[in-house]
Amino acid sequence: MRDSRELVEKAALLRSLHVPGRPVVLPNAWDATSAQVFAEAGFAAIATSSGAIANSLGYEDGEYLPRDDMFAAIERVTRAVQIPATADVERGYRLPADELIARLLDAGAVGCNLEDSDPQTGQLADCGEQAAWLVAVRAAADAAGVSIVLNARVDVHFRALGEPGERLAEAVRRARQYRQAGADCVYPLGLADPADIDRFVSAVDAPVNIAFRPQGPSFGQLASLGVARVTFGPGLHLAARSWLTSLAARLIEGKDPYSLS
Amino acid sequence: MRDSRELVEKAALLRSLHVPGRPVVLPNAWDATSAQVFAEAGFAAIATSSGAIANSLGYEDGEYLPRDDMFAAIERVTRAVQIPATADVERGYRLPADELIARLLDAGAVGCNLEDSDPQTGQLADCGEQAAWLVAVRAAADAAGVSIVLNARVDVHFRALGEPGERLAEAVRRARQYRQAGADCVYPLGLADPADIDRFVSAVDAPVNIAFRPQGPSFGQLASLGVARVTFGPGLHLAARSWLTSLAARLIEGKDPYSLS
Repeated sequence: MRDSRELVEKAALLRSLHVPGRPVVLPNAWDATSAQVFAEAGFAAIATSSGAIANSLGYEDGEYLPRDDMFAAIERVTRAVQIPATADVERGYRLPADELIARLLDAGAVGCNLEDSDPQTGQLADCGEQAAWLVAVRAAADAAGVSIVLNARVDVHFRALGEPGERLAEAVRRARQYRQAGADCVYPLGLADPADIDRFVSAVDAPVNIAFRPQGPSFGQLASLGVARVTFGPGLHLAARSWLTSLAARLIEGKDPYSLS
Repeated sequence: MRDSRELVEKAALLRSLHVPGRPVVLPNAWDATSAQVFAEAGFAAIATSSGAIANSLGYEDGEYLPRDDMFAAIERVTRAVQIPATADVERGYRLPADELIARLLDAGAVGCNLEDSDPQTGQLADCGEQAAWLVAVRAAADAAGVSIVLNARVDVHFRALGEPGERLAEAVRRARQYRQAGADCVYPLGLADPADIDRFVSAVDAPVNIAFRPQGPSFGQLASLGVARVTFGPGLHLAARSWLTSLAARLIEGKDPYSLS
C-alpha cells in the first residue's frame, strides 16, 4: 500500500472539496498524460472514467477490461499527479469489500464510484443489497485506516428503468439509503433537467455529483442548483478522440496535421 | 505468437507500401484509441512511438518504461486494428535478437524501428556493431518465418554529433551499411533540410523514412524528394496533449469544454 498518511490526507482533502453550491470539478483522466494535463491546469483533484480507460486499452466499457488492467491503469493515473484522485470502479469487479479497498489504496486512489446497476445487463441492483455493499465498503475503508470518498451512483435515470414519472422519487429513495449506508456523495447519472436536479438536491441530504453534458446546465447553473461535484464520465476522452479524428482526416488528405491544434 | 500467416501477409503488405516518391504515411499511435482513429481514417498501416507510449504510461522516453510494459502497449495497439503495425522499440531493450523478434511477433507487430544511439547517453553506436545487430535481427526474423520490416534509424543528425559539415556523409555511410545488413528502410532522424534529404535519398540505395516536422517540407515535397515513408515520432501525441491542455484551460475557467472540439 502507498504511504497511508498521504492517502489519509488526500482523502480528507478530496472530501472537503465537496461543497454544495460550490461544486468541485473533477476532470476524468484515462492515462498519465491526461492526468498530468489536468493537474497542470490547476484542478484540485481528478477522477478516472472506467469507459475512457477501457476504450484507451481496447475494450468496451462495462467491466470487460480485466480488473487487474483497470487497477494498473488507475495506478498510472494516480502516480502521474500529486493531487487526490478518485477512481471509477463500476460495480466493484465482484471483489469482496476489503479487497476492493486494498486494491484502490494500492493503486493510490482515495475515492471511488460504485454504481447500482449491472454494467452488462443494465439491471438495477436491489436497493437494500446495494446499501449493504456500501456499508461493507465503508467498513473496509475504515478498517484500512483511510476514509475514502465514496460516491454512490444512482442509475435510475441512466438506465431509464421504471415509469418516467416515478424515476425521480426512486432515485431519491436510493440516494437517501446510500447516504445512510455511508456514501459521501450521491451521483444520479442521467439526471439532467435543472428542475429535477433542483428537486433531487433538495430531497437528498447529501453532496450531489452531476455529470456535465454538452446541452445541459452550465457550471454556474449547477452551482446555483446546489450541486457539490461535477464530472464528465468518458466525455473528455471522447472529445479528445473526436479531435484526433479531425487531425487524422486532415493528415490523410496530405495536410499538415500540426496546423489544426 | 499470433497467426503466423496473418503476420507474414501483413509484413509483406507493409513492405510493399514503401515506394520511393510515393511515401507511405504512418501515423504513430500510442494506445488503442489512437490506433483505431488512424485505422478508421483510412491509413494503410500505422506505427507506434516509444516516446508517446512511455509518456502516456507516465514515463520519459528512452527505455525508462519497463520493456514488458512497452510490448504490452504495442500489443494493445496492434489488437485494436486490422492494418499492419510497426513498432518503435528504441535500441531493442537489451534483448537478444531472437527474443526481440519473438516479442514483436507476440505483440502482433510486423515491423520495427531500431536506433543507432543510446537513448540514455545519446552516444552513437559503433556503425559495424549496429550493422551486426541488424544482421542478427534480420536472421532471427527469417528463422521465425516472418520477414518483418526493419527500419534502421540513423541518429547522426538527431544527436547532432560530429562536425555539422560531416554529418551527411556519416549518415549516408551508416545508412548504406544498415541497408546491406538487411534493413528495409533507413530513417535519418533529424534530417530536415530539403537539399540534404535529396542528397541522402540519392546516395543511399534504400527506401528512406523522414520525420514530418511542422516547419519542414510538406508531404508533396517529401514525395518529390523520393522519400518512401513519413512518420511523426511522438508528434501526434504531443499535438493531442496540447489540444487537451487547451480544453483543460477552458474547463478550469468554467467554460463548456465540449465547445472547443
